[in-house]
Amino acid sequence: MDQKTTIYDIAKALDITAATVSRALNNNPKISEVTRKLVLETAAKMNYKQNRLAQSLRSGKSNNVGVIVPRIDSNFFASVIRGIEEELRPEGYHVIICQTNEDEMRQIENISTLLNAQVDGILMSISNVSEENDHVIQNVVDKNVPLIFFDRKKKMDGVSSVTINDLEGGYLATKNLIEQGCKRIAHLTGDQSLEIYDNRNKGYQKALLDSGLPFNPDYVFQVKSNVDAGRQAVDRLLSLNPPPDGIFSSSDFAALGAIQELKERGVRIPEEFCVFGFGNEPFTRFMELSISSVDQSPLEMGRMTAKVFLEQINNTDKIKIEKKVVLNPELHIRKSSSRNLSS
Amino acid sequence: MDQKTTIYDIAKALDITAATVSRALNNNPKISEVTRKLVLETAAKMNYKQNRLAQSLRSGKSNNVGVIVPRIDSNFFASVIRGIEEELRPEGYHVIICQTNEDEMRQIENISTLLNAQVDGILMSISNVSEENDHVIQNVVDKNVPLIFFDRKKKMDGVSSVTINDLEGGYLATKNLIEQGCKRIAHLTGDQSLEIYDNRNKGYQKALLDSGLPFNPDYVFQVKSNVDAGRQAVDRLLSLNPPPDGIFSSSDFAALGAIQELKERGVRIPEEFCVFGFGNEPFTRFMELSISSVDQSPLEMGRMTAKVFLEQINNTDKIKIEKKVVLNPELHIRKSSSRNLSS
Repeated sequence: MDQKTTIYDIAKALDITAATVSRALNNNPKISEVTRKLVLETAAKMNYKQNRLAQSLRSGKSNNVGVIVPRIDSNFFASVIRGIEEELRPEGYHVIICQTNEDEMRQIENISTLLNAQVDGILMSISNVSEENDHVIQNVVDKNVPLIFFDRKKKMDGVSSVTINDLEGGYLATKNLIEQGCKRIAHLTGDQSLEIYDNRNKGYQKALLDSGLPFNPDYVFQVKSNVDAGRQAVDRLLSLNPPPDGIFSSSDFAALGAIQELKERGVRIPEEFCVFGFGNEPFTRFMELSISSVDQSPLEMGRMTAKVFLEQINNTDKIKIEKKVVLNPELHIRKSSSRNLSS
Repeated sequence: MDQKTTIYDIAKALDITAATVSRALNNNPKISEVTRKLVLETAAKMNYKQNRLAQSLRSGKSNNVGVIVPRIDSNFFASVIRGIEEELRPEGYHVIICQTNEDEMRQIENISTLLNAQVDGILMSISNVSEENDHVIQNVVDKNVPLIFFDRKKKMDGVSSVTINDLEGGYLATKNLIEQGCKRIAHLTGDQSLEIYDNRNKGYQKALLDSGLPFNPDYVFQVKSNVDAGRQAVDRLLSLNPPPDGIFSSSDFAALGAIQELKERGVRIPEEFCVFGFGNEPFTRFMELSISSVDQSPLEMGRMTAKVFLEQINNTDKIKIEKKVVLNPELHIRKSSSRNLSS
């Protein structure tokens, strides 16, 4: 009987109309307190369960929160999601996840999928979205569904974001390479329409400038965040004259590929060539030749993102909150850029 | 205007009632073919978009499919999900993901969350579910929501599953260690209530038996699938007398921890001690001391799981299909268990 008790069963048991039962269950003020109590008690006794979807249509709350990430198979995004879940679960929210695989069309589909699943908010790290599809994201804002960007954001009025200081991260990583004696530092960057890659690139260039090193545009490559891309980049970089003697990579995966290729070509790391990654993926410290990397505090980023969401959804004022939280990056200097330690 | 055209706008434009528009859009047979065509054309011209949730309530289809995994931050599960998406997306289905963090309560919440998000099916790899909560999974079956298990399954009537032959995987990995000359092979296993770990354990024991090696229960430890657990296991194993000279680990993460601990203690791998993992996580081949592992064909597993789902949802017969697909494991023998190659 459990799953099938309906308001009609309750109505029959109490010899009242189903409409009255429905009103009582939904706290309609037209129903007397006595009747309401009777209906609630009977419903409990008969193990009646309100349909949560129907409830959500009425209350406008599903208690589900959607998270959109470019990919789930990166420790960074998985850790942000863990942080989000840790913060939201005690508040009664459930997290459902969609990945875009860096595909703009999928991102648009994901937004529509989550809206149709009646989520109470969307927390997203964007893949590239061309301006012609901006209205899809704007639509979320217009529907008053709380939207918060983390890590990869777009400039958008009224949308809060939680990021790290990518410029500072790029600056510090490049500074480390310079301090290790690298004179010709290459940079593997990502899609420049994403602020994170643009800012890491700016930090890289600022560090060169501050140290009086020349900036050579031939040393800057846009690569995908994977091992093969890092290998290919080294292939091209070593054919330059003069070749670089260090790499700051915006991606740990590309940094790993670069190291593999350098080793296969007999280039000694860190003696002849230093490498610095970004993201602090677990493998960077597991490797025998551990990889220096910039940590992005993903758990903290997830928790902050969730907190900003909770502030918005619990905000009963009509004032819109727009928060920009910027976390500080942290260097993890390891063997791939530590000449002092290994000499 | 795009996002806001309603049936009332269409009704006004055509000077008919909104009810007629609604009936026409929903192919109600009471509406003449002429009117229906006119309404559809006008709706298209005015860029009217039907509310997908309302549609799904009518048609009973949301085109969303829920996937539940123990964790997203493992390459194995991420790859299975990629396989599922590759197969489902061309069929118009969108995938939403929930993770349990191996927590039974979260798994129950995830099922409820997905059902309330009106998914058309649930594809899941279970975390442990005690019998007292079996009814939550049974409830999915009873609601006629297609349910398919992958990798980690429960025995359940009417539920299809896609798994690999874990017993064979455990058998082959252990055989490899025996062929390398290991005489005292330990086994790091997982939660024995999950068939996958039970079967890998059985394969391990069968290989010992077939090779005439004694089975020593002191050499079998249940560990969590993480690096620290592997380290701690080695700590305990090396205190035994005699200590083992090889480990078959049901988890690549625990295998990695075991190797780290062995190296720190000065044990030479593979000369004095061989290690074999399970899962073929990417880091196993990235390491300088690459780790032997059993590949589980996750992409193929995801695709097969999606295909079984599509068969079920497109099955218009009243006959229930129950499919058990079993994929073959594949060994990747690397340095951690290759005495011949490295001597």
